[in-house]
Amino acid sequence: MGNCMYGLCDSFGCSKNTNIRLKLPAVCFIWQIAMIILFGIFVRYNEESDTHWIEHKKTKRNLSDIENDFYYRYPSFQDVHVMIFVGFGFLMTFLKRYSFGAVGFNFLIAAFGIQWALLMQGWFHSFGTGKILIAVENLINADFCVGSCLIAYGAVLGKVSPVQLLVMTLCGVTLFAIDEFIILNVIHAKDAGGSMSIHTFGACYGLAISWVLYRPDLNQSKRLLGSVYHSDVFAMIGTLFLWLFWPSFNSAICSHGDGQHRAAINTYLALASTVLTSVAISSLSKDKGKLDMVHIQNSTLAGGVAVGTAAEFMLMPYGALIVGFCCGIISTLGYVYVTPFLEKNLKIQDTCGINNLHCMPGIIGGIVGAISAAGATEYVYGSEGLSPYIGTMFPMVPRLQGGHQAAGLCVAIVFGIGGGIAVGTVLKLPIWGDPADDNCFDDEVYWELPEDEESHSVILEYNNHMRNKHQDV
Amino acid sequence: MGNCMYGLCDSFGCSKNTNIRLKLPAVCFIWQIAMIILFGIFVRYNEESDTHWIEHKKTKRNLSDIENDFYYRYPSFQDVHVMIFVGFGFLMTFLKRYSFGAVGFNFLIAAFGIQWALLMQGWFHSFGTGKILIAVENLINADFCVGSCLIAYGAVLGKVSPVQLLVMTLCGVTLFAIDEFIILNVIHAKDAGGSMSIHTFGACYGLAISWVLYRPDLNQSKRLLGSVYHSDVFAMIGTLFLWLFWPSFNSAICSHGDGQHRAAINTYLALASTVLTSVAISSLSKDKGKLDMVHIQNSTLAGGVAVGTAAEFMLMPYGALIVGFCCGIISTLGYVYVTPFLEKNLKIQDTCGINNLHCMPGIIGGIVGAISAAGATEYVYGSEGLSPYIGTMFPMVPRLQGGHQAAGLCVAIVFGIGGGIAVGTVLKLPIWGDPADDNCFDDEVYWELPEDEESHSVILEYNNHMRNKHQDV
Amino acid sequence: MGNCMYGLCDSFGCSKNTNIRLKLPAVCFIWQIAMIILFGIFVRYNEESDTHWIEHKKTKRNLSDIENDFYYRYPSFQDVHVMIFVGFGFLMTFLKRYSFGAVGFNFLIAAFGIQWALLMQGWFHSFGTGKILIAVENLINADFCVGSCLIAYGAVLGKVSPVQLLVMTLCGVTLFAIDEFIILNVIHAKDAGGSMSIHTFGACYGLAISWVLYRPDLNQSKRLLGSVYHSDVFAMIGTLFLWLFWPSFNSAICSHGDGQHRAAINTYLALASTVLTSVAISSLSKDKGKLDMVHIQNSTLAGGVAVGTAAEFMLMPYGALIVGFCCGIISTLGYVYVTPFLEKNLKIQDTCGINNLHCMPGIIGGIVGAISAAGATEYVYGSEGLSPYIGTMFPMVPRLQGGHQAAGLCVAIVFGIGGGIAVGTVLKLPIWGDPADDNCFDDEVYWELPEDEESHSVILEYNNHMRNKHQDV
Repeated sequence: MGNCMYGLCDSFGCSKNTNIRLKLPAVCFIWQIAMIILFGIFVRYNEESDTHWIEHKKTKRNLSDIENDFYYRYPSFQDVHVMIFVGFGFLMTFLKRYSFGAVGFNFLIAAFGIQWALLMQGWFHSFGTGKILIAVENLINADFCVGSCLIAYGAVLGKVSPVQLLVMTLCGVTLFAIDEFIILNVIHAKDAGGSMSIHTFGACYGLAISWVLYRPDLNQSKRLLGSVYHSDVFAMIGTLFLWLFWPSFNSAICSHGDGQHRAAINTYLALASTVLTSVAISSLSKDKGKLDMVHIQNSTLAGGVAVGTAAEFMLMPYGALIVGFCCGIISTLGYVYVTPFLEKNLKIQDTCGINNLHCMPGIIGGIVGAISAAGATEYVYGSEGLSPYIGTMFPMVPRLQGGHQAAGLCVAIVFGIGGGIAVGTVLKLPIWGDPADDNCFDDEVYWELPEDEESHSVILEYNNHMRNKHQDV
Repeated sequence: MGNCMYGLCDSFGCSKNTNIRLKLPAVCFIWQIAMIILFGIFVRYNEESDTHWIEHKKTKRNLSDIENDFYYRYPSFQDVHVMIFVGFGFLMTFLKRYSFGAVGFNFLIAAFGIQWALLMQGWFHSFGTGKILIAVENLINADFCVGSCLIAYGAVLGKVSPVQLLVMTLCGVTLFAIDEFIILNVIHAKDAGGSMSIHTFGACYGLAISWVLYRPDLNQSKRLLGSVYHSDVFAMIGTLFLWLFWPSFNSAICSHGDGQHRAAINTYLALASTVLTSVAISSLSKDKGKLDMVHIQNSTLAGGVAVGTAAEFMLMPYGALIVGFCCGIISTLGYVYVTPFLEKNLKIQDTCGINNLHCMPGIIGGIVGAISAAGATEYVYGSEGLSPYIGTMFPMVPRLQGGHQAAGLCVAIVFGIGGGIAVGTVLKLPIWGDPADDNCFDDEVYWELPEDEESHSVILEYNNHMRNKHQDV
Repeated sequence: MGNCMYGLCDSFGCSKNTNIRLKLPAVCFIWQIAMIILFGIFVRYNEESDTHWIEHKKTKRNLSDIENDFYYRYPSFQDVHVMIFVGFGFLMTFLKRYSFGAVGFNFLIAAFGIQWALLMQGWFHSFGTGKILIAVENLINADFCVGSCLIAYGAVLGKVSPVQLLVMTLCGVTLFAIDEFIILNVIHAKDAGGSMSIHTFGACYGLAISWVLYRPDLNQSKRLLGSVYHSDVFAMIGTLFLWLFWPSFNSAICSHGDGQHRAAINTYLALASTVLTSVAISSLSKDKGKLDMVHIQNSTLAGGVAVGTAAEFMLMPYGALIVGFCCGIISTLGYVYVTPFLEKNLKIQDTCGINNLHCMPGIIGGIVGAISAAGATEYVYGSEGLSPYIGTMFPMVPRLQGGHQAAGLCVAIVFGIGGGIAVGTVLKLPIWGDPADDNCFDDEVYWELPEDEESHSVILEYNNHMRNKHQDV
């Protein structure tokens, strides 16, 4: 079976060279070797993951082993890890013939990205010492950073080569680390669950790239731009693991004790609320009230995105429900109206609808964070929770904090769009092995498919057979 | 593609109106808004999830942050969460054309149910204070509560509309909360893993509803009441995640320390034992000793159900193995003999066989709990573990405790059957958009299916083609 | 539908009797009853899972409940549990018609094996006391032990009956326990993640059995020895959960505090590195640089295997990356060159390629462990981490420790090969109901398949129809 299964290549111009036999291995080897060298120079264990922990815990009021940060954060880390690799990977398997690419390339770029993220984030947080000292919290942050690149992948799913994805991830991680440093350490905004730095940034980055890479003739591969029954069930694996573990995502790097506790509760509630409004709008939007799997797979997650920044705040349980309520509506309406609008009017082709799942809810999340920070009172937070500069919650007085939160949101948007346009321009060069317009969304291009893909080929054959018969008659 | 894909609607009476375009959104919106209002009035964070934790831990002998209940319970909570959404959802995907409904409606009703459960359970445990103060233990209890409604869904899978499911969940959660309050707080029975309050109640509730909603002509949709190869593999995802995380389910709300530890061990052992006897009986029951996927998917879980009540007790490792041993046999025999008997003689149509997986093993679990409580001795439990009224284990002297355990079991059965009949009668009203008899077990009714469901339609077409040919000859 | 769906049985000698209706139930019942009796005699809770915990924690400097070993190890235990049942099970579902056998028999033998492992490992570690006192660490060790048998299953996947698998597991667990005791307690080697005792032993055991059971006419079932599109996606579920939770696997039984922390970090890094080199070699090995799903599913995991022994050591982050880098290359090359070589020249038929995923990386892991132990310095480990006989890390001076590590590796290989040949010889007896050569890799033999497996039978029928037509013409 050749590269182009419809025998149209010669006449219609599948002229693009998708052979990546040298490019992909070269990029993988060069980058992995670079990682080894840079890790050799810069990265060491920190005092909690080093054998010196024995001495360290004695110096600190006789800590017990259980107070090693590992036990505070490792369960959440593993949940986040599941979200990044299984959650994002399977969420994108909904296309009928791009499941290998969805789950496989997600795996590849995440595995590369986490290494580069450890370095980039480490450099920004270890000025002066010269060494990056890592522990479980760094692993979580690396997973977070990669999450933003996987979000961006959702916009270009099926339209780019793995080499482009690796470039996109390299640049995305770099931009993320700068962006995050500015938001958290320069502006001193809080962003525990990353509504701004992960979701808004990642979605803007992906949408901007997709805009630069606009393909006017993409409808040539329209036949592959849908799901089949079982691919939709596979996608639900991704949806559910993302939905389930989102409380861990938003709470993973919160402060010990009540911070993590509260973030998990807020996220749990926001997500529950989102499901009901997503279902409601999905049913309203269709003939006979039938539900659309695209909405169930994606919009039900919007509440988790939107509650990210404010997860740790005293948002109150009803506040979380309200955030989820609104986002379920907005995200589902996004799939119904905004995605077609973006494609038609703004020339942004967004395969997975990341605008609806990450961009709009992420921006809402940033706004919710700004408002709830600005409105924080000592009555709610307690004097010890809120005293400026020494309290656990905000580094500034509430009103000022609110302004800084809003500034953080703007930074994320600017970095996302600006970075995306720059990177997209690089990716447009004709050297990366991307597929032709009529080969998009097809695993055939980059994967050895099972030789006897019976059900598929028989059906095609059968269809042809029937067609010929009709013509004969 | 129309609603009735066989073109028989006009002549044979798919006369039922399954249009839920107004009903479903209306119910979702009304209930979600009600939740927001009630949460606004009643629900707040408790002292461990509130910013006041800083002060709280100082007043309690200088607690460390790691002693926040979050770290005792959050890993178990996440495991339970996986069971509720992935486990129950995928376990029901075995039907060839009802996977969307299985995993999607499971998602919908669980997301609604957990909110209502937080309120209902909260009200019962916060008399006097006026506010419901929530923390991670409440989230686990809400998941548990919803579990009973998902069990009930198993009995009516494919035969009800999502609107009916939402009503069923509203009432089910309400009944559960009352039932649980009586069992745990009035009768003072112990029921850590919920053999009685979750499994027995949930199964009785579902079976009673199914009895009321009996469809004499259900064999009209018999063609859809089986699995296909891949749907059985999807269902194994559900089975395995349920099986794996059951130790967390039974230990999640046990007392700190040895209680959680012992409950996990007992459950691990009971489940291992069940697998072997389920396989043995499955092989015995079939020609040539072939195994039946239905048994492997369901009966292997019976040991976890049956060890629920006694999970925290000093059941001893061999005791757990014996419980699992018996339940594997009983549950598999249930699928072979009891399910057909129930349908034929008692007019109970039980799609997933919840009688065999939850009802019978749940009752066994209640009895095991009663016997092992009544037989508790100071020799086994130690003086501090068993001193009546102050010990960690039982609130009463053992013999009395055994009687109360038995009483708890009776309460669960009575609430389940009584509540199920009442709710079933309401659900029988012809206003809920339930499917016609020949449309059951078909996602077509409530879901937008992928337009080019090739494999399916080609096969039907091909079958017709062959049939016509034979007739021609 | 009969046992042999191609109607060739009579003429071509599907003469083997695969009826296991008496054998399988008999083995299951006998072994499970034996387990109950032996658990009754030997197994009790230990002081951390017993109600005596209340007294125990008082005697030990007023321990808090959170310092119960349960909270140190339970999250890792659950991750390992997912790997054993979901990870290994789904990884083997890649065959087009053996998914039931892959996930179902994996479930059966793991559930039996963990019980027998608790006893065998318990006996070796409780000389003198007479009772085996179990806690969460024992559950993890039992899961580990079973892991080695599941690895061995990979070599014979599709070619043996469930009765043979149960015998293989009984013997495998026994051998593992002896092997492990010698490595850890006699030779005093360290092997936290089991590169030697789990992976090398398990793979050698499986390959030796496969060698003894060599089937010269296996190409009769060649038509079933491939994947289909969706079976490859199912296998990715296994791959990803194994990959994700491997840091927990390697850290689960490490020493509290920095040991677990460091093992998780090392494994995380090694696995990330492996993905890139696996992808690179996979792309290089194929025409047009297309990726092969077999490599992505398996070789990406090799880094986790290879870093097992040294996971807890001060391997340094770049060291972990280097180990992963090499193993991705070696494992993928193994699939391309070594597997065909083994089959052709050494008569070892290795269905899942366990040589490439477990044997070669396991041996590398043993060597890495020996080298890094021999090279340990006080500068790196600190004086308290390395003082011989009293330090937390090694029981001996480094150079001596290195020698002992190497000796441990040899023991694992010898036990694996020797034990495999012995057990294979027993399994060759014609009494176990194994399938005929042309029935291998077919679920039809041991499973009741869905009656209307439409897509499959229609396709076969259609193919025949087309073939006849061509012949007519």
